[in-house]
Formats: sequence, structure tokens, C-alpha cells
Amino acid sequence: MFLDIAKRVSDFQVANPDAKLIKLGIGDVTEPLPKSVLKAFHAGVDEMAGRSTFRGYGPEQGYAFLRDVIVKTDYHARGAAIEADEIFISDGAKCDSGNIQEIFSADVRIAVPDPVYPVYVDTNVMAGRTGPNVDDRYEGLVYLESTPDNGYFPDMPTEPVDLIYLCFPNNPTGAMATKEQLKQFVDYARENQAIILYDAAYVSFIRDESLPQSIYEIEGADEVAIEFRSFSKNAGFTGTRCAFTTIPKKVKASDSEGNMVEVHGLWSRRHSTKFNGTSYPVQRAAAACYTPEGQAEIHALSDFYLRNARLIREKVSELGFGCVGGDNSPYIWINMERDSWEAFDLLLNKAGVVCTPGAGFGKCGEGHVRLSAFNNYENVSEAMDRIAEAL
Amino acid sequence: MFLDIAKRVSDFQVANPDAKLIKLGIGDVTEPLPKSVLKAFHAGVDEMAGRSTFRGYGPEQGYAFLRDVIVKTDYHARGAAIEADEIFISDGAKCDSGNIQEIFSADVRIAVPDPVYPVYVDTNVMAGRTGPNVDDRYEGLVYLESTPDNGYFPDMPTEPVDLIYLCFPNNPTGAMATKEQLKQFVDYARENQAIILYDAAYVSFIRDESLPQSIYEIEGADEVAIEFRSFSKNAGFTGTRCAFTTIPKKVKASDSEGNMVEVHGLWSRRHSTKFNGTSYPVQRAAAACYTPEGQAEIHALSDFYLRNARLIREKVSELGFGCVGGDNSPYIWINMERDSWEAFDLLLNKAGVVCTPGAGFGKCGEGHVRLSAFNNYENVSEAMDRIAEAL
Repeated sequence: MFLDIAKRVSDFQVANPDAKLIKLGIGDVTEPLPKSVLKAFHAGVDEMAGRSTFRGYGPEQGYAFLRDVIVKTDYHARGAAIEADEIFISDGAKCDSGNIQEIFSADVRIAVPDPVYPVYVDTNVMAGRTGPNVDDRYEGLVYLESTPDNGYFPDMPTEPVDLIYLCFPNNPTGAMATKEQLKQFVDYARENQAIILYDAAYVSFIRDESLPQSIYEIEGADEVAIEFRSFSKNAGFTGTRCAFTTIPKKVKASDSEGNMVEVHGLWSRRHSTKFNGTSYPVQRAAAACYTPEGQAEIHALSDFYLRNARLIREKVSELGFGCVGGDNSPYIWINMERDSWEAFDLLLNKAGVVCTPGAGFGKCGEGHVRLSAFNNYENVSEAMDRIAEAL
Repeated sequence: MFLDIAKRVSDFQVANPDAKLIKLGIGDVTEPLPKSVLKAFHAGVDEMAGRSTFRGYGPEQGYAFLRDVIVKTDYHARGAAIEADEIFISDGAKCDSGNIQEIFSADVRIAVPDPVYPVYVDTNVMAGRTGPNVDDRYEGLVYLESTPDNGYFPDMPTEPVDLIYLCFPNNPTGAMATKEQLKQFVDYARENQAIILYDAAYVSFIRDESLPQSIYEIEGADEVAIEFRSFSKNAGFTGTRCAFTTIPKKVKASDSEGNMVEVHGLWSRRHSTKFNGTSYPVQRAAAACYTPEGQAEIHALSDFYLRNARLIREKVSELGFGCVGGDNSPYIWINMERDSWEAFDLLLNKAGVVCTPGAGFGKCGEGHVRLSAFNNYENVSEAMDRIAEAL
């Protein structure tokens, strides 16, 4: 999909060399790293300059100074009893959510939402788990549909599955789950011995305090859920690279003989064999997000993008299109009620705005496009005016 | 093995709280990053501070500014016709050499040297390729023995194999291959449709100009070899994290229907799906290694460790033990002619020196220990005096 988008954008630019294109397609941040993060990043590099402060190989699981502040701020403060040795620092949530399937056997039954972040599907395709693709769906996957009819909250599986990928605030839809909604999945997982792979890369955009910022705010989730978190979208680390995965020791999976084994140990073995730790100065930079100044700065950063998101949502609603997201999320998922690539071309050619066509995220993405709030307010404002005019 | 070593070292320290332990075990660097690398690292962080210079997601394959200087310096200057789009920047050679097996099918026949860097074996064990372990060897692997009898150069496979892991300068033995020796493997691979996975993480320690610094200095290797390189040991990046993997487009493998496919495309898909690029400031830091100042500094850095290596080799030879390595390598592999854990305990308890017992690297490691030159000269010198006294 992204190659196809790049081709169409490039064709447009060749045909319209003077047009100012506004990109609201890819989910990449645009604003600088926060000041306290930069300061800690430099300080980490400075430590590499002296023999007594130099850091060589670090713990594969990440430094305790970072894991400690994570559990305190992201978990204990939210009432979730996660411990520091249940956190695995990494270089990205894409890597972690892509690699996690490696520790499960080739014949596990997998459920994914539709629409879905493509990495969950592609990594299972590469691992040979999905069977043939027929009519835009893999025969070996169970699809949990998110549509206008169910408020874009994925259906519960109606057949037994072992792994369930979920993402809230959702990529691509921007929809958020309430505690009650998440509890349905946690209860399903506990009853069916399933494991939830919960991608929470966008939690910093949640402003409604009643919404869960971690799946571990749901009772019993620490027995059935693995959570992926990232510094990419809260602190602008898309080019700096740091993330973490949380695996409570209570999470167990059945081995080929039916014995229950700790998933934590399986991932620990994978992580320490195929990964060699995240860059030390980057871990120092990430830890700065948890200082009082850092917390204020990353809050301001997500406020910056949320202001754009609200504007997009308002303007889209004024135009009379159905949409979801944009309140607790940087994405707005718009029901264009027409072919999603046709909608993409329309916005590109008539408004000079790049979006992402929904069909690229799955069959249920058809008819929709995703707009991202990752840009500055002036550009987003201009983009929405142009879209209003074009439509 | 490393857990067992840690336990014995900790027990020794509890029993001898005042003893000064000298660690020549693990292959981790001790000296600060070079000045020009630090400068570029800081400059990269500074770019993250401004909206116009900020970098978000980079190309998964790595920035062209780094790939370009790599091919010019590491390949073109050595007569190897590698192009920049054949380079994949990553966060570590351990990760790359561990992940590479993912793109091959479950039933490929694999040859590994013995002794061997454990990651090559462990990642294939985790992928379910190796069968049961009987008498310290996996039934599904072909072992290429490196012993005193063959000058520690691994035997050629005597049965058909698809993948051959090689590492020169070798970890753990420190042995180096001549062009003629490498050519035997390249010829075997070309004749038998095999692929060589060539780990060249230690090339910066080669001082004998007649020796190959890349496998692509061997004619035809660009049809059959994948090369792993790293900034860990030449520039001290073990805690900073940057490496690269080279896959010439000429390297092909047979798919399940016998069609020959480009391995480059397979890895590109894996790399861009399960990895999200190396930290931008780290790539800037790595590129600084290729400036004239950077080249002089990293040369001085490997000289620093090679001085230690020569001393270890001299002292070990004076004591009458057979050994290999230490001339073009930071490792010295010593034939202790006794149980390798017994030798480990002897050096720990009588000399207060930590080595690595050879048996941890494979059956042929029995009787040997590895000493590493990664320390300062004073410590290495004291360690060798203590060892002389203890033996």
C-alpha cells in the first residue's frame, strides 16, 4: 500500500510541480524531541566519552533506571501491579509486535481486527501461519470486524482462537475502548486460554480519564495479556527508537504436551538471543520522559497533535461524513462512502492532501480513509479547508 | 554458560571480598567512543531539537549517507563491487546473524563451526531446525571442527549443506582465514548451491594486509555470501548499537518449487516488516567512523586492544601452551590440555582472572579457554603475571 501511495504522490508532484502538498497520510511525528529528553540524550552521549562512565553491552532487557520509572509511572500510578522485571526495553513497538509471534507455535489460531495495522498480519504471513489469501483475506486468520455498525469496536471471536491482536487507541481507526469493552476480551481470553497482544502505542493521546491507559487496568488482564508501549508517538521517538513490552509472569501458554509455561521466560530467551539491548543514550533519553518536566513536555506534545485531530474531526463532521477517532487519538477514520482509493485520488488531486486509503488496512477499511494529525496546525487547517472545497 | 560463569565469579567475590578480579572473559570493549564519533553523535541529537532538522521514521534499510561511505571504504577500496542498496543498516550483528535464519525454510541443512559463537546455534534451535541434542551436539546440525590438528580452521563439510556459518577473525578462537582458505568455502558454496553466512564483526583487528577483510575479496563470493559487519568492536559501539548486513543481489536461493529467488528481496521484506530503522543520531555517529579523523581514531582503538592481545599471546606461548589468535584478533584461544571448566576455575581461584571456558562454545572447545584483549594494558599485564605464577 505505502509503495502505491508513494507512486501516486510522486506522479501528482511531477504533474503539478508548484502544488503545495499537505501530508496527513503516514503516522509519523513532526515536532522536535522535548527539551528534557534532548538534555538527557546529550548527557548519555557524554558518558560514552569517559572510560569510567562508558557503557558497553547493557542488559538485554534494558537498564533498571528505565524499567523502574516505567512501572512506577505507567503502571503503579494507574493501579496496575506490574513489576520492573516484567518490562523488556526494545528499539520499537513495530519490532516487538512483529517479533512476538515467534515464540508461539506454527499452528496457533490467530484473530486480528479488520481494519488492522499490517505488521500483525504480515509477520504471521512470513511465518507461514496464515494459509492462502483468498478474496483479500487469509484463510488461516480469524477477522474481527470493526465497522460503522458496531461503532468500530472489533467483534468478539465466534470460534476458538489462541492469540488476539488488539490496539487501542486504534491504528488505523482512532477508536478507543472503554474498560467494559476491554473486559469482554479479557474475560474471553481467560475462559478460552487465549493470549491478548495489546498494542498501546498511542495511549498518550487519551484525555478521557475514564478510559484505560493500560490493559492491566482490567482485572485479570495480567494473566492473559502482553502489552506493547512506545516512545514514538508520545515523545517523538520515531527516529530515535525506544519502546517496551510488558509480559506479566502470570501469563502462561500451553506447550505441545499441554503443560502451562511462563510466556515471560519464552520471550526473555528470544529477546536475549536475538537482540542485544537498546542504545544506552537512547534509554537515558527515554527515562527523561518520566521526570516531572518530561511528563509536562510530552503532555504538551500530544496536546499539540490533539488540537489538530479535533479540528479534523470537526471539519469532517461538518461536511456530513461519519467518522471515529480524533478525540483520544491522533487518527481520524472517515467513512467516505466510496471506494477508498477513489477517495484517496480525489483528496490528492482536488485538494493536494495525502491521506491513507482504508482498503490498505483490510477489507473493512473499504469505503474509508485515515487522516493523521501529525503535522502543524496551519497545515492541517489549510488541508481541511481545501478538502471542504474539493468535496 | 555465561550464567554459570557469573555464578562462579560471584561466589569467588563473596569468598574473597578484597581480591582484585581482572576480567578477560566477555568480549566487551572498555574504551570510550572516538572523539569524532562523539561529535557526530551530539550533532545528530542536536538535529532532533529543531523542526526543520528533526528526523522521524528513517528508511528501514538505513540512511544513504551511511550506506554510501560504507561501500566506498569497506568495499570499493578493497576491490569488492558492493553497491549501497546491498547494505542493510541495523542495531547489531548479533541481531542480524540471529535473525537471518528466519528467511530460510525449516528444513535447510546447516553447518556451523565447532567451536562456535552460540547465537548461530541457539537461533536455529529456537526455530526448531536442529533436532534433539545428543551428547552435546544437535543431530540436525553439521559440525565443522576447528582443532589444533587443522590449525583451528574449520573442516569443509563432507555432506551436502545449504547454509554455512563462518566467522573470521573468529570468535571464539581468534583464528583468521587466508584468501586461499576462504576460497575453498566459496568454491564449495558455488558448486553445492549453498549460502555462506560470513560474520566479519572483528575485521578491524586484521593487521596482515594479505588477509581478506571482506569475503567479497574472494572471486565469486558475491554470488553465495552474506556478510555481517559491526561498529561494536572497531568503534566501541557495544552499548551504542549499530551494525550492517551486506546481501549482494546476485545471491540467490532456491524456493520450494526450485525457482531461484534473490535473497536480498527476502531479507528486505523481513527487515522492513520486523524492524523500523536504527536510531538516527547513532547512524550519524557510525558515519563519522569513515571520515579521515574517524578512520585514524578507530585504527588507534584496535591498536590499543591488539597491544594487549600480543602480550597475552606472548606470555601464553612462553608458558608453553599452544594457542591461536591475538595477532589479527582480540581473542586468544589457548589449549590448556585439561578440562576447560577446570582451567576456568584454576585461573579464577589462583590468579583472580576471568576467562571463558572453551566447552561453552562447543565440543571442540573442550580443553581450551578464551582470553579477551578488551581491557587496559596494565590490567592485562597484571593478569598475565598472575597466570604465570598460578600455572
